[in-house]
Amino acid sequence: MEKIIYLDNAATTKPFDEMSKIYQDCMVDFFNPSSVYDPAISIRKKIELARKSICEALHGEHGSVIFTSGATEADNLALSCFKPRQGISLAIFAGEHPAVFNKAKAFENAGAKVIYLPVGKNGTLDKVEDFVDSSVAFVSVMHVSNETGAINDIANICKSIKKISPKAIVHVDGVQAVGKIPVNLRALGVDMYTISAHKIHGPKGIGALWVKNGINVSPAVFGGGQEKGFRSGTENVAGILSLEYAIKKVTAELNQNSSIVSEYRSSLIDSLRNEGLSFDVNGEGSPYILNLTFENIRGEVLLHTLEKHKIYVATGSACSSKKPENRMLKGMGKTDSQIQGTIRISFSAYDKLDISEIATTIANEVKILQSKIKGK
Amino acid sequence: MEKIIYLDNAATTKPFDEMSKIYQDCMVDFFNPSSVYDPAISIRKKIELARKSICEALHGEHGSVIFTSGATEADNLALSCFKPRQGISLAIFAGEHPAVFNKAKAFENAGAKVIYLPVGKNGTLDKVEDFVDSSVAFVSVMHVSNETGAINDIANICKSIKKISPKAIVHVDGVQAVGKIPVNLRALGVDMYTISAHKIHGPKGIGALWVKNGINVSPAVFGGGQEKGFRSGTENVAGILSLEYAIKKVTAELNQNSSIVSEYRSSLIDSLRNEGLSFDVNGEGSPYILNLTFENIRGEVLLHTLEKHKIYVATGSACSSKKPENRMLKGMGKTDSQIQGTIRISFSAYDKLDISEIATTIANEVKILQSKIKGK
Repeated sequence: MEKIIYLDNAATTKPFDEMSKIYQDCMVDFFNPSSVYDPAISIRKKIELARKSICEALHGEHGSVIFTSGATEADNLALSCFKPRQGISLAIFAGEHPAVFNKAKAFENAGAKVIYLPVGKNGTLDKVEDFVDSSVAFVSVMHVSNETGAINDIANICKSIKKISPKAIVHVDGVQAVGKIPVNLRALGVDMYTISAHKIHGPKGIGALWVKNGINVSPAVFGGGQEKGFRSGTENVAGILSLEYAIKKVTAELNQNSSIVSEYRSSLIDSLRNEGLSFDVNGEGSPYILNLTFENIRGEVLLHTLEKHKIYVATGSACSSKKPENRMLKGMGKTDSQIQGTIRISFSAYDKLDISEIATTIANEVKILQSKIKGK
Repeated sequence: MEKIIYLDNAATTKPFDEMSKIYQDCMVDFFNPSSVYDPAISIRKKIELARKSICEALHGEHGSVIFTSGATEADNLALSCFKPRQGISLAIFAGEHPAVFNKAKAFENAGAKVIYLPVGKNGTLDKVEDFVDSSVAFVSVMHVSNETGAINDIANICKSIKKISPKAIVHVDGVQAVGKIPVNLRALGVDMYTISAHKIHGPKGIGALWVKNGINVSPAVFGGGQEKGFRSGTENVAGILSLEYAIKKVTAELNQNSSIVSEYRSSLIDSLRNEGLSFDVNGEGSPYILNLTFENIRGEVLLHTLEKHKIYVATGSACSSKKPENRMLKGMGKTDSQIQGTIRISFSAYDKLDISEIATTIANEVKILQSKIKGK
C-alpha cells in the first residue's frame, strides 16, 4: 500500500502486528471455551486470565470485566442498569458519544427523566453539583472526549455525585482514555467503565465493561450463560486475547507514547502558526487529539483536499454513520460556521510523522480554500 | 500440535485457513467504515457486498442481514421484536438453543405468556397447528437441532402458523442448517433467520440476523447508527468478511460436503454395530450430527475417556457454559439414565477421518465402562 499519513486514530487504529499471531493461534486452538475437555478448558482459563490482566492494567482489581462486541455494546449494557421509575432520573454529560447519548434518548423517549449535564467552555463537565440532585440514580460521563480530547475530572465528578446521591451508579466511557492517559479505576471511584480494543490497536468487534464488585448488572443477552450470564454467546476468544494484549502494551508504554504524541501535537500547532495560519484549538487535555477550527473553510472540504495528499483526518466524530448536530462544540460556544470549519487530528504514538511536512500541506490547502471563499 | 480427532463440530469448527488472509487484509485496510474518506468508503462498500452475498447464498434477496456478535445476539435481537401485552403470546419450540429458550424464559418471568411447542419423539416439532392459536404473535423454531441433528420442516411449520395467526412473525435459528442442509429462505417462508460464523469454519464473535423486508426490528444497541440503527457499533469488518467467505464456501460445497459427512455418519453407525455395541441413534436428519445413547455408561465419563485418545466429542449441547436439563432428549421420551448415557458426535467435511479406527476406540471404551458398571 502507498504510504499514508493516518491522523484519524480516534476513529480507529491500525492493529498491532502481534494481533495476527494471536488470531492465528486461535485458529489452531479453536475449541469452544464451553466444552468440557482439556483443550477447551485451557482456553477458558486464558479468558479468565485476560479478565484479570485487564483489571490489573487499569487498577480495577476490585471489579471484573464483561466482554462485549465493543464499546457501544458496553455503554448500552451499562445504561441498561438504569431502571426508570417515578422520581428517579438518569444524568448524562451532553457531550457523550452517541452510544451513551442515543441510549439515553431512548430512555427519554420512553418517558424517563434524563438530565443533560452541560458542556463547559473547555469541553469538560464543570460543576456537576449544580446539575445533579438526589433523584439521580445513574450517571454517565465520558473520561476523554473523542472529539476534543478534553479530560473530565472523573475522580472529583464521582465524589460530587456520590455526595448528592449516594446510591447513584457512576459509569464512565473510557474509550479514549485507556492507554492514553493514566487510568486508575480505584482512584477514580467509578462503578462501571467502558473499554474498546480497536481504539488501542486491537481488533474491531471486541470491548468490555468493567464493573465494580457488588454493582448489579442486568443480563443483556440471554443464552448459554457465558460472562456469568450477563452476556451470553460463545466467547470471541481471539478478540478477548487481543484486547488483553493491546491493553497491557499501551498501558505499559503510556508514558513514552504520551511524550511522542505530545510532541506531535505541540509541534503541529507551532508549525501551523509558523505557516501563518490562525485557528482555535478546541479543548486541551489528551495529547492524542487536536481539534482545530479555521475561519472561512468547511472542514469536510479540507478533509477531502487532504485526502488527495493521503492525509486522513476527521471532521466531527467518525464513530457515527450519521451526522448528528455537534453537541460538544456547540456546548463549548462555537457557532455553526465555526463548527463547520473544524477538523479533528488524532495521533498514534506508533506512527513516525513528519510534522513539518504535514503542517505545510495543511497550511497550503487551508490558505487555498480560504482564498477561494474570500474571492467569492 | 499433536494430531487430534475433533468430533465436536456442532460446538465450534476450525476456521478455514483463508480466514487468516482476510484478517490480515483488514489489519492493513483497517479504516473505520464510518469515516468519510475513500479507503473507509471502500470498506463500507465491502460490508454492503457481504450483506448481499450472504442473502444470495441463502436465497434471501427479499430481505437483508443485520450483523451481530454471533448467533446468540441474533436470536436475542429477533425475540426482542416480540412486544408482550395482554392477549398475545410468544411460542417457541421446547428444544430450542438456550439463546432462544432463556430469552423466552426472561419474557415469561416478566409476565408474558409463552407457549412451549413440544418436542416429538423424533426430536422435531410435529403438528404445530395443535399448539398455536391466533394469540401467537411471534414464533421461534430451530431449523436443525444442535443436539440431535433433527430437521424441522420449517416450510410447513411456517405455513401452518401463518394460517392460524397470519400476523405472527416466524423466526428460525439456522445455526446448524446454513451450509449443511439446503437453505432457501424464500421457500421456507420465514421472517427472520439466525446465522453463525464459527459453526461453519468462520471466526467466533460474528453472526447475523436475516430479516425479511417489511418486518419491523426493534433497535437493540443504540449509538452511531450502524446496521441501519438496529445494532450500532463500529463494524467487525474482518468478522463480516470472514462470515461472507465462509457462507459462500460452505453453501457452494454443500452437496459434496454432505456426501462426505453422510458417509462418515453411516459408516460410524455400522462400524459401531459391527463392533458388537448396541445403542440408540437419537434424531435422524442432518448428516453432520450423530447423537448416540448407550446403556449403562455415563456420557461424560466416556467423553473424558475418549479425550485420552485425543478424540473430542460432546455430551449434551456444548454451547452452554452451564448444564441445563436436556429438554430435547427429555422431549423425545428418553429417561434420565438414557440422557446421561448420551454423547454427541459432530462431523466436519473438511477433516479426513479414519472411521474404523474411531469406531474401534469408542467401542473398546464403551465396553470397558459397561463392564465396570456391570461388575459393581
